[in-house]
Amino acid sequence: MTYQQLYENILAKKSFLCIGLDPEISRIPDRFRRTEHPIFEFNKAIIDATARYAVAYKPNSAFYEVFGAQGWNELEMTVSYIRKHHPELFVILDAKRCDIGNTARMYARAFFETLDFDAVTLSPYMGQDSVKPFLDYEGKWAIILAATSNESAQDFEFGGEEPLYAKVMSKALQWGTIDNTMFVVGATRPEMFKAIREICPDHFFLVPGVGAQGGTVSEVVRYGMNSHCGLLINSSRGIIYAGQGDDCAEASTAAAKALADEMATYL
Amino acid sequence: MTYQQLYENILAKKSFLCIGLDPEISRIPDRFRRTEHPIFEFNKAIIDATARYAVAYKPNSAFYEVFGAQGWNELEMTVSYIRKHHPELFVILDAKRCDIGNTARMYARAFFETLDFDAVTLSPYMGQDSVKPFLDYEGKWAIILAATSNESAQDFEFGGEEPLYAKVMSKALQWGTIDNTMFVVGATRPEMFKAIREICPDHFFLVPGVGAQGGTVSEVVRYGMNSHCGLLINSSRGIIYAGQGDDCAEASTAAAKALADEMATYL
Repeated sequence: MTYQQLYENILAKKSFLCIGLDPEISRIPDRFRRTEHPIFEFNKAIIDATARYAVAYKPNSAFYEVFGAQGWNELEMTVSYIRKHHPELFVILDAKRCDIGNTARMYARAFFETLDFDAVTLSPYMGQDSVKPFLDYEGKWAIILAATSNESAQDFEFGGEEPLYAKVMSKALQWGTIDNTMFVVGATRPEMFKAIREICPDHFFLVPGVGAQGGTVSEVVRYGMNSHCGLLINSSRGIIYAGQGDDCAEASTAAAKALADEMATYL
Repeated sequence: MTYQQLYENILAKKSFLCIGLDPEISRIPDRFRRTEHPIFEFNKAIIDATARYAVAYKPNSAFYEVFGAQGWNELEMTVSYIRKHHPELFVILDAKRCDIGNTARMYARAFFETLDFDAVTLSPYMGQDSVKPFLDYEGKWAIILAATSNESAQDFEFGGEEPLYAKVMSKALQWGTIDNTMFVVGATRPEMFKAIREICPDHFFLVPGVGAQGGTVSEVVRYGMNSHCGLLINSSRGIIYAGQGDDCAEASTAAAKALADEMATYL
């Protein structure tokens, strides 16, 4: 998917919502737990209930790897289901991988060929070697951690004359283009978006941290939106666990619709 | 495994060799490729041929994820095989994961409970939140990227008054102990080991970059060894692809023995 196609999808759906598919078996309603593929069946119900209001989905690999080979299989089923039934969606693997050379190429093959993701999140600690192999795929994206939403982001990402997150963004501008690179910028420090947009005016940002972590859509939009939207705002638990029992699909529809309705007012 | 147990294993085997299990299907001899579990069968042959000369093995998750659920299954078979037939070995998953809170806890469960690894490599970009959940497991280890061996390590890890790798080590000293924390320090900049040992005199270092990448055992030992050895030197391709055909097991034995023989002279 290109930058322009993503922007057109956002305009068509009047939403820049990304839904995080991080299913925990203990929080999944019984009727899914009794099936052969509980994680996949739960994901399927959530996707069908929310796809009208979302432009992107983002499974996090940890929630699948915890089930070993079976979890990996259900991740594969989830991506295939999205591709087949909701082909307009942008599908991100939140993997935050961080490896180099031949190993990074293996990860790129794993996520862009074995699995058919549009994008993968990456940790830039090891520099360009760990990002470049992902940029060799036409239409695929590397989403690089920059300024994250967690508390201990301040351990290394912030501080000093040129903070690490700013260094990462400045360097990465030389590695890729707006058509294959995004950055992760957390919603919990909205006042920083202004400085961040000065470094990267045109790129898309993947923004976690709205809802449970305290960020708001309005503040992210105020400081972070650009002429092509430039934002994918993620919500995970607030949507997939909006309902606790048999109403989970309906409740997730309502939660996704509420966010999309707000987003529509900014587009 | 404790620090002391690891040191005793090193003394008993007269080796601080770690073998990287990064099997590529195109480089595996035909007789393995014709089996139902080619990656596992190849690993098994290499492990049995080299375990006498190694204290640790280190599969890298990328080389398994590229095969999807089947790859994950063969990774599981590989760890189980080591546990059953070579219980003295220290088994590291080279995963370089980088996530926080609940997600980091899922990764810890995936690698320390679903799979029975002793240790996992981590990228520290997001700070303490991404390491702490792994330190809550008694006898298990977090191996944190510090100064890596790749060329673009200089993009972010080095430079400035307090380089990022030094910040990472200084901070991480407050998170864990010598019994649950190691650091990745590449062999390609041996002259840096002296400064690094001043920050972390007692910790174990996992050292990649010997062989193909240009580092040597003698230089790493000269600058990096401490009173409890403090080094696990990794070799991957130099051992697992030492032979190209049906002699691959014998050739890997010889390659591992050569490294272990050199290591014995330093212990």
